[in-house]
Amino acid sequence: MANNKTVIKNGRFLVPGAIKPVLSGYMTIEDDLISYIGEEEPLSEEGVQIVDGSRLLFMPGLVNTHGHTAMSLLRGYGDDLALQVWLQEKMWPMEEKFTGDDVYWGTSLSVLEMLKGGTTTFLDMYDHMDRVAEVVELSGIRAVLMRGVIGLCSEEVQNQKLAEAIAFARNWHGKAEGRITTMMSPHAPYTCPPDFFVKFVQAAHDLDLPMHTHMSETKREVEQNIADYGLRPVAHLEKLGMFTRPSLVAHAVHLNDEEIGILSRHNVGVSHNPGSNLKLASGVARVTDLLNAGVKVSLGTDGAASNNNLDMFEEMRLAALIHKGVSGDPTAVPAPQAMRMATEYGAKSIFLDKVGRLAAGMKADFIALDIDQPHLLPHTDLLSHAVYSASARDVEHVWINGKQVVKHGECLTLDEEAICRKAQESFEGLLKR
Amino acid sequence: MANNKTVIKNGRFLVPGAIKPVLSGYMTIEDDLISYIGEEEPLSEEGVQIVDGSRLLFMPGLVNTHGHTAMSLLRGYGDDLALQVWLQEKMWPMEEKFTGDDVYWGTSLSVLEMLKGGTTTFLDMYDHMDRVAEVVELSGIRAVLMRGVIGLCSEEVQNQKLAEAIAFARNWHGKAEGRITTMMSPHAPYTCPPDFFVKFVQAAHDLDLPMHTHMSETKREVEQNIADYGLRPVAHLEKLGMFTRPSLVAHAVHLNDEEIGILSRHNVGVSHNPGSNLKLASGVARVTDLLNAGVKVSLGTDGAASNNNLDMFEEMRLAALIHKGVSGDPTAVPAPQAMRMATEYGAKSIFLDKVGRLAAGMKADFIALDIDQPHLLPHTDLLSHAVYSASARDVEHVWINGKQVVKHGECLTLDEEAICRKAQESFEGLLKR
Repeated sequence: MANNKTVIKNGRFLVPGAIKPVLSGYMTIEDDLISYIGEEEPLSEEGVQIVDGSRLLFMPGLVNTHGHTAMSLLRGYGDDLALQVWLQEKMWPMEEKFTGDDVYWGTSLSVLEMLKGGTTTFLDMYDHMDRVAEVVELSGIRAVLMRGVIGLCSEEVQNQKLAEAIAFARNWHGKAEGRITTMMSPHAPYTCPPDFFVKFVQAAHDLDLPMHTHMSETKREVEQNIADYGLRPVAHLEKLGMFTRPSLVAHAVHLNDEEIGILSRHNVGVSHNPGSNLKLASGVARVTDLLNAGVKVSLGTDGAASNNNLDMFEEMRLAALIHKGVSGDPTAVPAPQAMRMATEYGAKSIFLDKVGRLAAGMKADFIALDIDQPHLLPHTDLLSHAVYSASARDVEHVWINGKQVVKHGECLTLDEEAICRKAQESFEGLLKR
Repeated sequence: MANNKTVIKNGRFLVPGAIKPVLSGYMTIEDDLISYIGEEEPLSEEGVQIVDGSRLLFMPGLVNTHGHTAMSLLRGYGDDLALQVWLQEKMWPMEEKFTGDDVYWGTSLSVLEMLKGGTTTFLDMYDHMDRVAEVVELSGIRAVLMRGVIGLCSEEVQNQKLAEAIAFARNWHGKAEGRITTMMSPHAPYTCPPDFFVKFVQAAHDLDLPMHTHMSETKREVEQNIADYGLRPVAHLEKLGMFTRPSLVAHAVHLNDEEIGILSRHNVGVSHNPGSNLKLASGVARVTDLLNAGVKVSLGTDGAASNNNLDMFEEMRLAALIHKGVSGDPTAVPAPQAMRMATEYGAKSIFLDKVGRLAAGMKADFIALDIDQPHLLPHTDLLSHAVYSASARDVEHVWINGKQVVKHGECLTLDEEAICRKAQESFEGLLKR
């Protein structure tokens, strides 16, 4: 199978968990897997594709663990507003009008942005998920998908939405050469009454799938949870049985020590969304405390409407910067840890064992940065440059599942011109409807 | 003089102070000035250069009001360290070895990065300033330059450094077609004893120049000032007479209400450096309170060693994001205000009356972004996109003083390949010496 084999020569490879985090050498890809990475040159073989790795920095593809991909259609539509005004006057009235086609083009726009920016895996919690899965299948990206369900409706509608979520999760799990996995996702404890939430836990058990939800994004939401149920959100979700399933919660900005203990004990992952949390003025999550308690903390962009881009380099940098500035400790969230949050911990948070690191036996999901540029020179510490100096725009090549999907900054799998035009038309159509 | 006239047609232009902050229309440049901007097409003339502005977003060039440009040679050399370890074990031993050539290549690297990233004016406080001025002259950028003087030395050496600072300020003020202006700059109250600081104030009076210094970057420094002089830094500098000169202070992270009042009363500008303040864990400046008190707040990158890039879009976005997240108010530092801090207020802070806005009679210092890209679509609010979604890498063209210096992302005035090579060699040379 030599024609499915690629050797990268003379590259520099980031292995942020290692003692020596920048490895100079070689990496071999066979089919969808990394079969070798090391300093010694592999024996030459006929029919093997050779990639010249000099001038490039290779790193694991970025893993975006929370988002609502189609919301890129509303990027910049209502900024600098109070949260309730933004939601009630801007987001919800527009989202109500979203058709399957809108979701298709919004998702396409986001996936294009993510691929070109080095994100190789994303989580999406939204509606019209069949259309999202279509984009994933076509684009070559890896994704964990779920129908996000708001349960503030009649029991009949609730049950219908739950059935949809179950059908989607069952139909798509393992599809697109295994690039798609699924989860069960009630939207949030404040939008899903307890009895409805419990039905999701039961479904997750039945389907043997993990769970995802929004949790403790705002202070107000925590206070409301206490008023409604007499418990803070973490204890509330524990009581509803969510943590009997492998679980990931998004945001988790407002936590007390006891809640951090519960999350750690149940091995619940936290998707930290620094850009969105700052922009919506939700606050600054206790990331250092979570990491110290052994909680898996990963990074997410949230939807582009509250970010306002899907640049995971920016989330990595924000995570490395804000926790230093707010805590007063310049050693908080050092560069290797920020990078692991954006890659290895991200993959673990969404239960993908073979993604997130450059190592033999792992899926060949990796990216290459052009490092011969003024803002990435001199070459003092390339891991530091990737975290503190680089951006999505420095991504030169992207491989997912062993296939190259971005080459010299151009996406090989999607029609960029058509997507940009269709996304603009979709937005204009929403304004008119 | 029709061959010195350019008309931009069908462009979109950002005027963040206006009621309608995105103007669709035309802009005319004659020699070094903007002579017209408006919705009506100017009469056609022979010999006029026409620029097609469709697909582009025009905005004022970014103004970086605090930095140490040659420090890009130390980008990534010592991150995630406590401030004193970083300074004493990493920065100072290396900076001591800097030659004029190191400063020349470090500054060239930074100016190249800034030009390609849309920064058209920068402030530099450093040593070997003649070499910095050479780079400014060659590159076409606009700069306010000053010898930054640390006075922790004998009176003889102090006087020699002061004489150097005065000679530099006098020789270069108004040079390079007026693109260079100068200021007097004692490094900081904690590195310049009061009597020495006062000599700078006197020199600034004699030369009729403004003053710049670091102030209240860390909490420790404020405490030290109180211990040494019985005053907080703002009152201390007021007592030394600094504010009798037009002044700009960098950082100003740790201020009380009284100090904000003094700064406002004397019309002292503040260069806010959010990236550096977060990375060095200095804290979060009281930007909203400063703006509410009528203080001119502008943005600076600081040196690349504590940032770690010179992307002013990132500073603009950080300023718009962190003050929301930390205050809990999502309307704090809205996009138009963040952009004015990075342009108009920046120019005012360094006493350049004709820079920082797109308007007839202003200097033709402006940039064009490529807005037909996935992360800048749909075109909902282009000012918002420039602040929340764009980066240095989206800059397509740059004009300064009426001359184009960056075209399709390529710098027309500097040799990029040579600078990248020389900067790397300089860093390697410093390691060996």
